[in-house]
Amino acid sequence: MTHARLNPLIAGQSPPPVPAVQAWARAYDGRHGPLLDLSQAVPGYPPHPDLLAWLGEAAADRAFAGYGPIEGEAALRQAYAAHVGALYGAALDASNIQITSGCNQAFFAAAMAIAGAGERILMTNPCYFNHETTLAMLGIGIDYVDLDPASGFLPDPDMVEAAFAQGAKALALVTPNNPTGAVYPPDLLRRLFDICREKGAWLILDETYRDFLPPGSEPPHGLMSVAGWEDNLVQLYSFSKSFCIPGHRLGAVTASPAMVGEIAKIMDNLQICAPRPPQAAVARGLPALAEWRETNRHEIMARTQALRAAMAALPGWQLQSLGAYFAFVRHPFGETPSRVVAERMAGEAGVLVIPGEFFGRRQEGSLRFAFANADSAAIRTLPERLAVLG
Amino acid sequence: MTHARLNPLIAGQSPPPVPAVQAWARAYDGRHGPLLDLSQAVPGYPPHPDLLAWLGEAAADRAFAGYGPIEGEAALRQAYAAHVGALYGAALDASNIQITSGCNQAFFAAAMAIAGAGERILMTNPCYFNHETTLAMLGIGIDYVDLDPASGFLPDPDMVEAAFAQGAKALALVTPNNPTGAVYPPDLLRRLFDICREKGAWLILDETYRDFLPPGSEPPHGLMSVAGWEDNLVQLYSFSKSFCIPGHRLGAVTASPAMVGEIAKIMDNLQICAPRPPQAAVARGLPALAEWRETNRHEIMARTQALRAAMAALPGWQLQSLGAYFAFVRHPFGETPSRVVAERMAGEAGVLVIPGEFFGRRQEGSLRFAFANADSAAIRTLPERLAVLG
Repeated sequence: MTHARLNPLIAGQSPPPVPAVQAWARAYDGRHGPLLDLSQAVPGYPPHPDLLAWLGEAAADRAFAGYGPIEGEAALRQAYAAHVGALYGAALDASNIQITSGCNQAFFAAAMAIAGAGERILMTNPCYFNHETTLAMLGIGIDYVDLDPASGFLPDPDMVEAAFAQGAKALALVTPNNPTGAVYPPDLLRRLFDICREKGAWLILDETYRDFLPPGSEPPHGLMSVAGWEDNLVQLYSFSKSFCIPGHRLGAVTASPAMVGEIAKIMDNLQICAPRPPQAAVARGLPALAEWRETNRHEIMARTQALRAAMAALPGWQLQSLGAYFAFVRHPFGETPSRVVAERMAGEAGVLVIPGEFFGRRQEGSLRFAFANADSAAIRTLPERLAVLG
Repeated sequence: MTHARLNPLIAGQSPPPVPAVQAWARAYDGRHGPLLDLSQAVPGYPPHPDLLAWLGEAAADRAFAGYGPIEGEAALRQAYAAHVGALYGAALDASNIQITSGCNQAFFAAAMAIAGAGERILMTNPCYFNHETTLAMLGIGIDYVDLDPASGFLPDPDMVEAAFAQGAKALALVTPNNPTGAVYPPDLLRRLFDICREKGAWLILDETYRDFLPPGSEPPHGLMSVAGWEDNLVQLYSFSKSFCIPGHRLGAVTASPAMVGEIAKIMDNLQICAPRPPQAAVARGLPALAEWRETNRHEIMARTQALRAAMAALPGWQLQSLGAYFAFVRHPFGETPSRVVAERMAGEAGVLVIPGEFFGRRQEGSLRFAFANADSAAIRTLPERLAVLG
């Protein structure tokens, strides 16, 4: 009798990072007030009461108890296509939309639709860790483009072009970025998209945090107006953040009907369809709560300003990048790895952030602050709290 | 500029089978009464009103709007561990349980935890098509053990042992079976489990339909009482069928804490956590609605008897296998492929079933009836409806 074997691609991965970070908070004794949790991105304000009511209504309704369409509820696909179409000035309909159970799943399915084990996808360093582990678990090779803090962590198009030399089938980007918060300008995105088109590659563009761009922002990009965009673009989104409902698990892919067809095959195996009641509720919320989401942009802007002021009051701490939801911050403890710093911050200052090294190689000097989780008053306590670290 | 390429493991798959089958029903003009949908397995009776109320309550509650634990809500993991422990006479606690978004996802994650691309898993022919496509999409090779209708579609242990020659890391079984309905006896399951242990392989055991075994049945097996069971067994389950809530997407894995740890790594990438509100509601329903579920067993038994009588009244149609939820039926049209027969049944008789060939090679003579979808009165219309096919 031999021991039953595991998949080394999974067994070789560390346990999920967020719970590991959250465990550090147990050492905090509350001396500086309640824990300031800037780890996993969740806006601190509640969902709109109407949305909670609609969620409850749909969940109690027998009509949504049965299986739904694999691609998603028609009402949500239509509402979201109209929303995305208006935002980007693009001609979209329901056939361009696949509803998923959150944006991680959207990325997982999009990556699988494009690449199998032994093929390659191009990412940035630093990057969102779950994108990296998703590809690693699927046996998809990863090529990296290093991002330079001096350039605001924006990918250099020449480096991207060169990095395609290994034959990557896609470039995966996140804008506004996780972890750095960097907002990729429309012309940079267009340049990177054109490189993908020249290379016969896909651009997988995760825009989970786009609703937290400052009020009055221009559209994030014009890629969906490029003729034939759908032959190279797969765009991902999450309803979790802007509607404050990550516990309900809802995301979306915007792509060609053909790519939606590929992803639907995967979704059918992954879980048949996304949960139906939140789809019904968000279909109502998308148009109805537009004003509420606009108000939240202002709130997030205020938090951005509060963070900027707080960091300026902290000698030695350097705000490397600050964007829609996240800040990437250089700590003042030299060679001390960010993991050690973050654990001390949790236990001694009651401030929970994610170490830079969780997001890639050579990021030990940095920390990710999901500052938009906390209100401005809480953010203003940062200088006093972090000062105790000495 | 070259065309952006897809993953051939996905592109090579047909579109999902259930919607393809459901499309055939559009040709039916209602002449024999409402469509009798025996395709996708969904009990025709509604969820318990208390469960609907709890689902609504939890979905409207801000407490479940945020992210939850990757492994699942503590309340549901505890309640389900107690339920499974009592059912199988096993010592289990919450650490043995991973909650998933339906049982397809449980299978997907379990398969990934065990095997990567280029490795192999052993299945039966016929088998549940989504298990097959899941493995194929992940690049996992499949070895098959052919099932013999003359032996009630029960796997032959010698054939299973021999089929491990290709080095499969797991044997994947479904009991009560989908598509045949066959209920694997406890001693057969023990023999197959022992073969897995001898081979250093996992037994992935999908028991989605166990709640539809006849009232007063013995426990389905005693595998979880075998010392060291958790080194070789991964058991899967769905809350969708017995609680009639597939639209809410909820399933579970029962395994060793170490295997739960592996699957949690995958779940974190797949979708962070299963949707939270249904977890809260089902945690209440598991103990509270035990009597209701027991009543449903009687109802399903009555439907089983109605189907047996209906098929006996249909000359030429042969009930090859009949079990907890499904019947596998041989049609009387000789060499006509089951796909053609099923399409005619949909359009001309208003009876929707899934062709045998969707479940594997050489199954063209058979059809899967998810008879437990329909009440006995509807099942009794089958002889009259199917007679029109000539």
